[in-house]
Amino acid sequence: MAAEGVDAYFGIRPEHMRYLTGFTLDDGEDRVAGNSGRFLVSADQVAVLADSRYRLQAGAQAPGARIEATTHDLAAGWAGWLKALGARRVAVESDLVSHRVWGQLAAAAPDVELVEAAGWVEADRAVKEPSEIERIRSACAVADRALAAILRRIRPGQTERELALALEWEMRTGGADALAFGIACLAGPNAALPHGSPSGREVRIGQVLLLDFGAAVDGYRSDMTRTLFVGQPASRDLEIYNIVAAAQVAALDMLAAALRAEGPAPSGRAVDAAARQIIEAAGHGEHFGHGTGHGIGLATHEAPSLSRAADEVPLPSPTVFSVEPGIYLDGETGVRIEDLILFDRTRKDIDRLTGFPRDVLVVGV
Amino acid sequence: MAAEGVDAYFGIRPEHMRYLTGFTLDDGEDRVAGNSGRFLVSADQVAVLADSRYRLQAGAQAPGARIEATTHDLAAGWAGWLKALGARRVAVESDLVSHRVWGQLAAAAPDVELVEAAGWVEADRAVKEPSEIERIRSACAVADRALAAILRRIRPGQTERELALALEWEMRTGGADALAFGIACLAGPNAALPHGSPSGREVRIGQVLLLDFGAAVDGYRSDMTRTLFVGQPASRDLEIYNIVAAAQVAALDMLAAALRAEGPAPSGRAVDAAARQIIEAAGHGEHFGHGTGHGIGLATHEAPSLSRAADEVPLPSPTVFSVEPGIYLDGETGVRIEDLILFDRTRKDIDRLTGFPRDVLVVGV
Repeated sequence: MAAEGVDAYFGIRPEHMRYLTGFTLDDGEDRVAGNSGRFLVSADQVAVLADSRYRLQAGAQAPGARIEATTHDLAAGWAGWLKALGARRVAVESDLVSHRVWGQLAAAAPDVELVEAAGWVEADRAVKEPSEIERIRSACAVADRALAAILRRIRPGQTERELALALEWEMRTGGADALAFGIACLAGPNAALPHGSPSGREVRIGQVLLLDFGAAVDGYRSDMTRTLFVGQPASRDLEIYNIVAAAQVAALDMLAAALRAEGPAPSGRAVDAAARQIIEAAGHGEHFGHGTGHGIGLATHEAPSLSRAADEVPLPSPTVFSVEPGIYLDGETGVRIEDLILFDRTRKDIDRLTGFPRDVLVVGV
Repeated sequence: MAAEGVDAYFGIRPEHMRYLTGFTLDDGEDRVAGNSGRFLVSADQVAVLADSRYRLQAGAQAPGARIEATTHDLAAGWAGWLKALGARRVAVESDLVSHRVWGQLAAAAPDVELVEAAGWVEADRAVKEPSEIERIRSACAVADRALAAILRRIRPGQTERELALALEWEMRTGGADALAFGIACLAGPNAALPHGSPSGREVRIGQVLLLDFGAAVDGYRSDMTRTLFVGQPASRDLEIYNIVAAAQVAALDMLAAALRAEGPAPSGRAVDAAARQIIEAAGHGEHFGHGTGHGIGLATHEAPSLSRAADEVPLPSPTVFSVEPGIYLDGETGVRIEDLILFDRTRKDIDRLTGFPRDVLVVGV
């Protein structure tokens, strides 16, 4: 804030609020349209905005903060809150605050300058504290155990929805506070939908079963994808599985080599390229439409990004991100293999936080 | 759109996209920051924007729409999409589109005028089709059955979290595609937190247990609150229960009387006042901090609003909304009773869609 010459920061992203104030409100619906769960921080003060529904919770979770009462009209309190902070130049999360609210805030305190802020807190959040890493590790362990628990229960004829619910139940009763995100459980040709929802499609012998899922533990997320084979693998499926696995290994090898050499960290773009070139060399470049990975923590997707569009700056450290190449053949099949990696330049090797085996796994027989 | 003199409408709210295009993407995280699940409609065309992850799903769910490929940079395609629609003046959902994206779109097609649109689709959505009402009714029935199923299993010593998970499981295996929202399961003094999350607090004899929960069926939501008594009710809890019940009856009576008289529909503000005056007369006005009700459909909270801040215009018809007065005593106890009401001016009476009894219910004994 000092470097940018602002006196205060106005945020509404729930992960930022939790990270900076302790208040954990994440009411999906109120995320944008509501007026609770917004916060203001200055060099020496924190103010949490909460309507009557959340006042007690905010006070308990953010004991060091002043709790300011809001109503439907956020702008009504705006000038007063800024005056209490002595703020004349305020950074506002312009990537989440709506255009309408921005206009209302600008009008409510015309003598205060609003500065577009995007990515300020994200950069801090990308570098993980030991306590954050341990919570991600716990979330990974919950997901590992859940997959192990349902593996032997997978049978041809079960639907994607039934299996997703069974996996969710194992996580929710096995230590997860919540899912990190809606489970992808995709059978056969549905596996070509990289983020499809579980349907009534039945699992069939000779097809793949793609599971992309994660747990949340104390706010921190895990994320893992395994592509299983139901019965004897089709040779085409096995072929693309091996390409995807090799692409993942290429990315992991680049990361491990950088640590062993104690050289500079590779960029997210370089790691993406390492995985992508394996898939391109196998003739499937156009079937890998997404990035190779993403940071993870309080949000499932956060900085750093590992993709063709990622910055060519070294990865932060210590940080946690996914490595998840995939190949998707429309209407036919899909394979993705995803693990979470702790990249820490004080160590000699990468640390794979997702423990589940990546070998070819045949189920349902 | 014609009345407002615009050629096209740019939307990003997931409920609007589902309502207008059929595409059901609701990726919580991508809701604001992502670039998939945005849409453009003109008088005769629909364009759905989807990145590679969602392209197949969008094509299947919105067969009449043109699927436009997006990348990280929404603005890159903006000018071309508008040109294809022949649009020169475009309405943009300013209450959800971020200030940053608004600026990027304005810069990407400087000859196109952007008009702030808020509430355009909401007004249409508030009036329900018969098929929408039936889906809300189904969601209510799922929730009714789920509560009935867990009622006899409630025992002192169980935690809020355990009971919430049991209730969720009954809904998810009993016909719900998803929860409408995170279940509130609040015991004793926690019931004073109108939207608190379930904790490790144990249910105890002599306290209330407040359950606020809903199911989603085919995209449509239910919402119901019941405040149960664990063992012999404390006289103070029973007293405020009776006040809240009387407040709810006052609101329902006003609505039913308007239908019987075939007079004008009351406003949301008038219905709120009818409930509120009962609570104020009992000396608890300051303990009822939220509105009396909200519309419900594809979103849990939508138009119309029944509150002190609601417009003084007649309620739409047919429409579905909650009636949910409450009294919350900080650190002591809380009571809320919530039902969903179908208000249809072609009928002679209101229709309560939530079927579960509202009587004093003693559990855990």
